[in-house]
Amino acid sequence: MKNVRVHLGERSYTIRIGADALGDIGKVCLRHFRGARALVVTDTNVAPLYAEKTLASLAAAGVQASVLRIPAGEASKSMRQLSRILDRMASMRLDRGCGAVALGGGVVGDVAGFAAAVFLRGVPYVQAPTTLLAQVDSAVGGKTAVDHKLGKNLVGAFHQPIAVVSDTSTLKTLPEREFRAGLTEVVKHAAIADARLFSFLEKNEARILDRDEDVMGRVVATNCRIKAKVVEQDERESGLRQILNYGHTLGHAVEALAGYSSELLHGEAVAIGMSAASRISCAMGCCASGDVERLTALLARFGLPTRMAEPPKLAVLKRLLASDKKTRRGSPRFVLMRKIGEVEPEVEVPPRLWRGALAGS
Amino acid sequence: MKNVRVHLGERSYTIRIGADALGDIGKVCLRHFRGARALVVTDTNVAPLYAEKTLASLAAAGVQASVLRIPAGEASKSMRQLSRILDRMASMRLDRGCGAVALGGGVVGDVAGFAAAVFLRGVPYVQAPTTLLAQVDSAVGGKTAVDHKLGKNLVGAFHQPIAVVSDTSTLKTLPEREFRAGLTEVVKHAAIADARLFSFLEKNEARILDRDEDVMGRVVATNCRIKAKVVEQDERESGLRQILNYGHTLGHAVEALAGYSSELLHGEAVAIGMSAASRISCAMGCCASGDVERLTALLARFGLPTRMAEPPKLAVLKRLLASDKKTRRGSPRFVLMRKIGEVEPEVEVPPRLWRGALAGS
Repeated sequence: MKNVRVHLGERSYTIRIGADALGDIGKVCLRHFRGARALVVTDTNVAPLYAEKTLASLAAAGVQASVLRIPAGEASKSMRQLSRILDRMASMRLDRGCGAVALGGGVVGDVAGFAAAVFLRGVPYVQAPTTLLAQVDSAVGGKTAVDHKLGKNLVGAFHQPIAVVSDTSTLKTLPEREFRAGLTEVVKHAAIADARLFSFLEKNEARILDRDEDVMGRVVATNCRIKAKVVEQDERESGLRQILNYGHTLGHAVEALAGYSSELLHGEAVAIGMSAASRISCAMGCCASGDVERLTALLARFGLPTRMAEPPKLAVLKRLLASDKKTRRGSPRFVLMRKIGEVEPEVEVPPRLWRGALAGS
Repeated sequence: MKNVRVHLGERSYTIRIGADALGDIGKVCLRHFRGARALVVTDTNVAPLYAEKTLASLAAAGVQASVLRIPAGEASKSMRQLSRILDRMASMRLDRGCGAVALGGGVVGDVAGFAAAVFLRGVPYVQAPTTLLAQVDSAVGGKTAVDHKLGKNLVGAFHQPIAVVSDTSTLKTLPEREFRAGLTEVVKHAAIADARLFSFLEKNEARILDRDEDVMGRVVATNCRIKAKVVEQDERESGLRQILNYGHTLGHAVEALAGYSSELLHGEAVAIGMSAASRISCAMGCCASGDVERLTALLARFGLPTRMAEPPKLAVLKRLLASDKKTRRGSPRFVLMRKIGEVEPEVEVPPRLWRGALAGS
């Protein structure tokens, strides 16, 4: 079992990473929920696989738990599902000494975390991520949100979990496509902050795609350390934290175009966005073409898309980017790559470069 | 014009208090909204009186503003009105360099403030309170919320405004009953923290009820100073801030019973709650009976209720208090009075005392 500490003063917490870590979730909750009651929020895919294991651990620790299942999929990041969770929290009469457990992927973590952020103006919650994407990225850092018809994550809160329990055994049950989509954020962390991790990924492609337990434990822990370090320096995304949005400016637009559907997973959209951002970086003289090739090659070896056959018209892109949270005075900001392991945030990019970069030119 | 500073590190802000302070709101917004755009949220009562004055000041400062009116009344502290405000923020494409203005009483401030707290995970907002209750209490301190059918303020956030503009001229247009209800929180602040203010209120009853401009400016500023001092020491209500809930434990229950209707205003419910809390304090040997008499006499002279003719059954009270945010392990906590100007938070009170205290015995 590996422990990664996120240092945020009185909001500090520990990420517990390892095979069968879910077996310890009862003890973790008991330590933090003085009220010894918890609402487990999960989805219709994850519930049949891991709800029982989670409830058994909670029961063994004497934590009274109730389960709420939301439909699997991005469509559940909605005001509607948020209200359902809040209704349940209210009818359970959770108080500030109780808490929530977000058992599932990024969607469950975001909407359950947001509910925990606003119920009674904040109750404690534990992230129990069961997807690679959530384990290496969304479960760490306290960003919670729901989507709005005019944009992704438009409504949310910064609310740190009181603990993260990352059971790497759960990665084995992930559908292949979803596992690969999760690798996008792994590649992103390496590309923005850790050239050594990038080389490790290049060398261990096969063992990673085999979901080798040792390698994946190491990958998850390294990614959590990278993300924790960034979040520690900029908890509320006023500066440095923006580097974590590498590939997300265009990525979110691509995702919005696909209507947040299973047609294109978040990780796939960001893979296209990262590739495009690297091409823009190169076109603007910020990085070398060799770095673009290494990035797109690694993504491709992980089976991820790196371009769009038919990018949308510029007017459409402009409209989509105007609702990006990183927009200032109507002008979207990009994170560009300087070299593998180093990026530059807050760059304005001429719109004429957007479409070509998406198309792969 | 009086200025009261609320010291909260990087979240510090200034409360500007005085006749015609609304005339300066444009300049205040311009200083804080780099994007120079704002959504003014107000209600159907306040809009005809003060929207024009507010918009003129914003326009003069070059701030582009749009107005959203919500129905006047507590029923607007709802997920529905919250969604309406968020929809408008999204369609206006507000970004983190823009902001909201909450122009109205406590309801507008709470729901618009909550929308500002969660839109893009937080955009700046200015409180422009137009009722006595909001000027002396709800607009200061960053508590925002909507109600839930199972309890008041069950869903919300701590989100400090970037400025408060309290135009004391607006007090003149308040309906008499609402003005008097606002005096409840004035009496509360005096009772919990300022014996001198309490004596001042006793001596100046007539000028206060006349809404004398000098006296009211002084009363609002003193109240803001008291509240600011408490909030500075405990921004997120983990301890000291609970003293501000004096009278609110039973007050909220009484308000819930009346269905948050115009039958009983928030201030009237809290006046009953404070009176009951003082009787409980006396019954538990915490304060002298003379203090109970001074408190209830002052409230009565302000035309506020101090008891219920028919308090609800104990079982009903228990159910209502169980959803109170200050409940720990199912047991509600009270703030009791030691003497005028001093209270003790976090006290468990035997349920057998609740009903009698409400009835006035």
